[in-house]
Amino acid sequence: MILATKVFFTSFVFGFILFPYFIKLLKKISKDGQPIRSCGPESHLITKKNVPPMGGIIILTSSLLPILLWVQLTPEILLLILITLFFALLGFIDDYLKLKTNHYRGLSAKTKILIQFIVALVGVFILKLYSAECFTKTSLFKGVIIDFGYLYVPFAAFVIVGSSNAVNLTDGLDGLAATQVITSFAFLGLIAYITQADMNITLFCIAFIGAILSFLWFNTHPAKIFMGDVGSLSVGAALGLTSVLIKREMLFAVIGIIFVIETLSVIIQISYFKYTKFKYGEGKRVFLMAPMHHHFEKKGWSENVIVMKFWIISIICSVFTITFLL
Amino acid sequence: MILATKVFFTSFVFGFILFPYFIKLLKKISKDGQPIRSCGPESHLITKKNVPPMGGIIILTSSLLPILLWVQLTPEILLLILITLFFALLGFIDDYLKLKTNHYRGLSAKTKILIQFIVALVGVFILKLYSAECFTKTSLFKGVIIDFGYLYVPFAAFVIVGSSNAVNLTDGLDGLAATQVITSFAFLGLIAYITQADMNITLFCIAFIGAILSFLWFNTHPAKIFMGDVGSLSVGAALGLTSVLIKREMLFAVIGIIFVIETLSVIIQISYFKYTKFKYGEGKRVFLMAPMHHHFEKKGWSENVIVMKFWIISIICSVFTITFLL
Repeated sequence: MILATKVFFTSFVFGFILFPYFIKLLKKISKDGQPIRSCGPESHLITKKNVPPMGGIIILTSSLLPILLWVQLTPEILLLILITLFFALLGFIDDYLKLKTNHYRGLSAKTKILIQFIVALVGVFILKLYSAECFTKTSLFKGVIIDFGYLYVPFAAFVIVGSSNAVNLTDGLDGLAATQVITSFAFLGLIAYITQADMNITLFCIAFIGAILSFLWFNTHPAKIFMGDVGSLSVGAALGLTSVLIKREMLFAVIGIIFVIETLSVIIQISYFKYTKFKYGEGKRVFLMAPMHHHFEKKGWSENVIVMKFWIISIICSVFTITFLL
Repeated sequence: MILATKVFFTSFVFGFILFPYFIKLLKKISKDGQPIRSCGPESHLITKKNVPPMGGIIILTSSLLPILLWVQLTPEILLLILITLFFALLGFIDDYLKLKTNHYRGLSAKTKILIQFIVALVGVFILKLYSAECFTKTSLFKGVIIDFGYLYVPFAAFVIVGSSNAVNLTDGLDGLAATQVITSFAFLGLIAYITQADMNITLFCIAFIGAILSFLWFNTHPAKIFMGDVGSLSVGAALGLTSVLIKREMLFAVIGIIFVIETLSVIIQISYFKYTKFKYGEGKRVFLMAPMHHHFEKKGWSENVIVMKFWIISIICSVFTITFLL
């Protein structure tokens, strides 16, 4: 209990102290801030100019500090740290290129996902070598267990990469990704605690909650800083791998329902557009705009209404998950 | 665990279904909504017109339903229900008078507080008759216990009335009181659970969390409904009495730090104004405007930034409380 709080306060206070300096520093470096996706709502081009990105760097710094200090560095925790840092690096390169060249396009989407998938595969494979026979088994709902066999390693890699990119897609409104990620870490950490899977994983989650709570202080609409790809990709990968380590990948899909919906909305939008274009010669859309949060923005919901309602949805789904599905 | 979730979902779903109908109904009854305090920021006169008050009625309906269904009606729970309903009635009369006459002034502040104090006194006194000898003892921090003796009953009544009016003062921005009350109920309920004071009290808290979460859905800025005095006075009294029942009145002052700050800001503002007026012939102010949240509004913080930052503060203080002060 005391240890958990120590981890929580260290990451929170550390982040809280660092962010103001970091924001000043970034503003000095770049006068224009992160170029906004040209496919987002028009209003974002004005309101979200000059907001520095790369807040993820401080999120990671302030959450990894207490982890390195007080969490036992088991193979699982080491892998969590390494995977998180690798996805952060990939995001950083992307953020940096965007900032430097002032065009939105960083690496191509396919290249990025391919690299991510290979790294996740390698990571999970190494983990498999260290783990017991039952590693390929995972829990569905209510203790129903299935054995993925050889398919488990690619499945786990898919969860990590999927989660990473889902958080990245969700990170389109001030405070949206932060609030969602806090809920997910809180309930995954709680599951790790309840099932006594691994107390170190709970501490890992708590460290991130503290850091992201301090980030949220500055990221609430109107945001003073964004987490950037360096933040969303790494935090998303950490969440995905956490769900893999506690063998609750399916439950994570319910806890992180917003991530799933956001991702599906993009897939549906693009697929339907391509399909209708192929069939009728003219592309049609299902949503006013994808990802989902832009759809509601177009419908006239204000930014923080969407954030708050999505947060309530994720809390409700998470409570449902730990009571009825665990 | 299952019972707690049943209580939570019942109050949430019930509130979630009722609020839209209630909002429509209230809009029909009153075309103008709650008259806004003339002492608030000017912008509120425009933005907060036409928002119906009295959301507290649905908060109470949907939280009391699962309590009556599934919580054991011990003397403590009965008193909680009765005190909550009485403060709700007082708030309702106030809300109704305001709505009907379309002037802000309801009952005079002194009359209200006097009535509240007498009722709280009677309530706590009855509780004392039912309780063990140690009823007059209460925990300070870290298990340090002091015995208030004969002073305990008026002290407990003061906590209830103070809490009730503090929540009432805090209820000045969309979502502010709701988020604060959720945190307080969550951590008081958690303390009741950890100290094994009374599981029924934990369930009572959970019922309110569910109901207020559904209220928050509609109360997020821009609000579709306010809780009104019927909500803030009753919920505040419920919080105060809860802290009395689990004998953690002092810890509640830390968990509910925002309520304390809001109330102190009003007291300081008025006292200093009167003092300087008496001494120098001209009244001076400490804050740009009281309660505290209006001070920050005047400083240019947007409504939801204040709500989110106050929420983060209360979460941090609450985590601190249960780890280091309990």
